[in-house]
Formats: sequence, C-alpha cells, structure tokens
Amino acid sequence: MAEPFHCDFRGRLFMGHLGNHLLNAADFHSTDRGFGMKYLMSIQRSWVLSRLAIEMDEMPEQYTRFVVETWVESAMRYFTSRNFRIVSPDGTKVYGYGRSIWAMIDTSTRQPTDIFAIDNGAINNWIVTDKECPIQKGGRVKMGNDAPLVRTIETHYNDVDINGHINSVKYIEHILDLWPIDFYREHQLRRFEIAYVAEAHGGDHLAFYSEAVGDSGYNVRIANADSGVEVCRAALVY
Amino acid sequence: MAEPFHCDFRGRLFMGHLGNHLLNAADFHSTDRGFGMKYLMSIQRSWVLSRLAIEMDEMPEQYTRFVVETWVESAMRYFTSRNFRIVSPDGTKVYGYGRSIWAMIDTSTRQPTDIFAIDNGAINNWIVTDKECPIQKGGRVKMGNDAPLVRTIETHYNDVDINGHINSVKYIEHILDLWPIDFYREHQLRRFEIAYVAEAHGGDHLAFYSEAVGDSGYNVRIANADSGVEVCRAALVY
Repeated sequence: MAEPFHCDFRGRLFMGHLGNHLLNAADFHSTDRGFGMKYLMSIQRSWVLSRLAIEMDEMPEQYTRFVVETWVESAMRYFTSRNFRIVSPDGTKVYGYGRSIWAMIDTSTRQPTDIFAIDNGAINNWIVTDKECPIQKGGRVKMGNDAPLVRTIETHYNDVDINGHINSVKYIEHILDLWPIDFYREHQLRRFEIAYVAEAHGGDHLAFYSEAVGDSGYNVRIANADSGVEVCRAALVY
Repeated sequence: MAEPFHCDFRGRLFMGHLGNHLLNAADFHSTDRGFGMKYLMSIQRSWVLSRLAIEMDEMPEQYTRFVVETWVESAMRYFTSRNFRIVSPDGTKVYGYGRSIWAMIDTSTRQPTDIFAIDNGAINNWIVTDKECPIQKGGRVKMGNDAPLVRTIETHYNDVDINGHINSVKYIEHILDLWPIDFYREHQLRRFEIAYVAEAHGGDHLAFYSEAVGDSGYNVRIANADSGVEVCRAALVY
C-alpha cells in the first residue's frame, strides 16, 4: 500500500519509498530461491546494488495497493540484472518498470566474487527471458566537470544502513530534495536512474553537482566533499 | 517486518519507521471503525496528532516480524487517547508501548471540532479500559529559555506530507540526527516523546535547541528559525 506518510504533498508515493519496495522485492525474491542477503551474510558474501533505474507512467496514489514483480533477466560471473514491474493487484494497470544491476562481493575483502559459485550456479535456474521490461537500460551518465555545486550536506544517523554505509534509498531522497518544493507542483518525475560508484559512510559530507540536460532532464553527481571521490551519479527525467 | 533499509547500523528498526507503523495502525484501526482519515477528509475533518510517546525495551531486529496493537483508551470532546503495544507475532515478547493524543479539526477553519459529533459519538463504542499501557503519559516538556541552538535545517520535498506540512515522522528523524552516529554505538533510545505544537511548512527553516536532563535524558525544542514560533518539543531518554 502507498502508505499516507510515504506519499508526497500531491498524495503520490515518494520515489525513495518505491525504491525501498523494489529493493525489498529483490531481497525477498532472492531469499526464497536460496541466494538472499541473510544466507549470503553467513558465507561472507553480499549483494551490492550497482545500478537502479525506475521509470513510472504514474506513481501510486495514497492508500492504493500495488504489486512489485521482480525477476532475474540475466546473470554473468560478476553481475546480474534484475527487473521490476509495478502493477495494480489485478494486473490491469501498469504503473511502471525498474531495472537493476547487482554485483556480489566478499564481505571481508570487499572484492567482487563469482556469482555462479553460489550453489553451483543456481541463479541460472531462475533466469526469465520472456518477460518484457520496456524501459531503457541505465547507461553511463555523462557529465562535464563544470556542473555547478548545488548543495553540500552532512550525513547523519538516519542516513546509515546496517553496513555503516549511506543507505541506497537515502541518496534518492537527497537528490530529489535538490529541487524546491514548488518545482514538484509542476513537474512529475518520470525516470530516475542512479549508478552507485563508491560507498560513503555516516558522517561524510556529500557534495551535489547538477546540470540540466535538454528541457526536462538533469544529471547529478555526488562526491565526498572532503576527498572529492565520486560516490554516485544519477540521471533524472521530469 | 523490520525491513532491512528501515534498520540502523546496529540492525535495529529506526524509531522514525516504528513511529510510522504506529501512525498507520492508528489510521487502519480508525478506518475499520468508521472514523478514519479518508472518511474524515470527505466531511472536512481530520485527525491531528498532538502527542506521541514511545517506550521500548528493545527495538525489533532486522527481518523480525512484529505486531502493532492499538486501542482507544479514552475520548473526550476535543481529544482522544490511543495506545499501542508492539509485540512478537505469537504475543510472547513485548518490545514496548506507545501512547498518543489526537485532536480533530475542521480542515477549512483548522479549528478543533467535537469528536463526538462523528456518527453520534460512535468512538465511545470502541473505548477499551481494561488493556494496560504501562508507560508514563507524555507531560509538558519543561525547557529553560537558555537551551543552546544545536542545529538549523532547511526542510525539503521529502519532509512534506500530503497536507503540505512537515511530516510527523520526519521530526523524529531530524531530532535523532542531532546526535553523532558514534553516540548510537553506546546509547540505545529507550523513550521518545514529542508534542506537536504548531505546523511547519515545506521550505521552512527549523531551529533545534537541546539540553541534557540528568544522565541520559535530553529535551529538544524545534522552532521556526525565521519567526521563532515553537513547532514541537520532544523528550528523549537513552
């Protein structure tokens, strides 16, 4: 359900909360098939979200129930691609779609590890090739070096996830917060795409750089404000 | 379920997300009994949360399922008191309790209205007097005028609820964010109490004043940084 406190002033689900639902769907789906986060933690492995793209015709309205479908589109040694479809419970109304790319890391070395090593490549049993996800794949977000700094924030307790890193969902919220509230009276976010480049940690200062692309697009780069290290890049279409 | 992205770096549910679950429980419970937000909106009425107190022995751990029970303790003309109990699904483990006070307003005048006017005082049919809520009621948080200003923030798109006001849950998050992340390595929040005094709006700058009370208590006052109008007061016990 699009819970009331998860909806914006127009009564539509916030993109951050939708992102959270997609990540939960990914977690529950992989858990049910034997390669979920909880099991991976027990063998010093973890999924790491590398890219997420969400494209919505419409955001679910306050109190509306919706279903998040998810399936594995493909798996390679170091990356797997998982798609999402957000639909009404009866399946007649499609709100939008999502695409995501995940890597698997060794939690002690933080290095990528072989996805097929889990249960003899069991992920291959779950690949669905005949389900359509009619939105563009996320690509490299090209940004010039002269995109202006638009905000610097300090990260706090509520920004940090169980690994001590800045929560993937919080980046979405901080990026959407770059625009003034009045902007959202006239603009509806149609596509949000983010590539996670490096981890940031609780307490880090994050610098946000943004540039317009055409009439209704924006690119955003987040960097560690002290070290300058790039943390993530996003592309938005309103 | 204590969803993974709703848990802090210690793997425990964030107080803000717990607060959201309590508010949802209140909404669903009142909706099922004919005096929920959605119906009230249709007759130009709305519930307004006046006070919320939550006291936890333990916060649910990541992936743990829990149940939020709620019941109306009492109703008067202008205020009703609703309690909460957070328990394991089998009822054997009590995580904690909550108390809340609600007023009903006329959404056109923003003035308090008679709760008993709804469906001939139907709320009286739902009062439960024999269920215990063994935590202190919220009282007036006494704060001196010399509590130091500890932070000023700008409010953004994600802070604002469907009424254009700062979301009740976001105050909880912003208050807990006043302490550095390392503080939470050593301190567990046992009791959080907040009194909502006046509405703040998206874009408002909020000033946070905080003072210690005894060994492990803190009082926090939030005011509009421009007008000085008090927005809410909170009392925390770690």
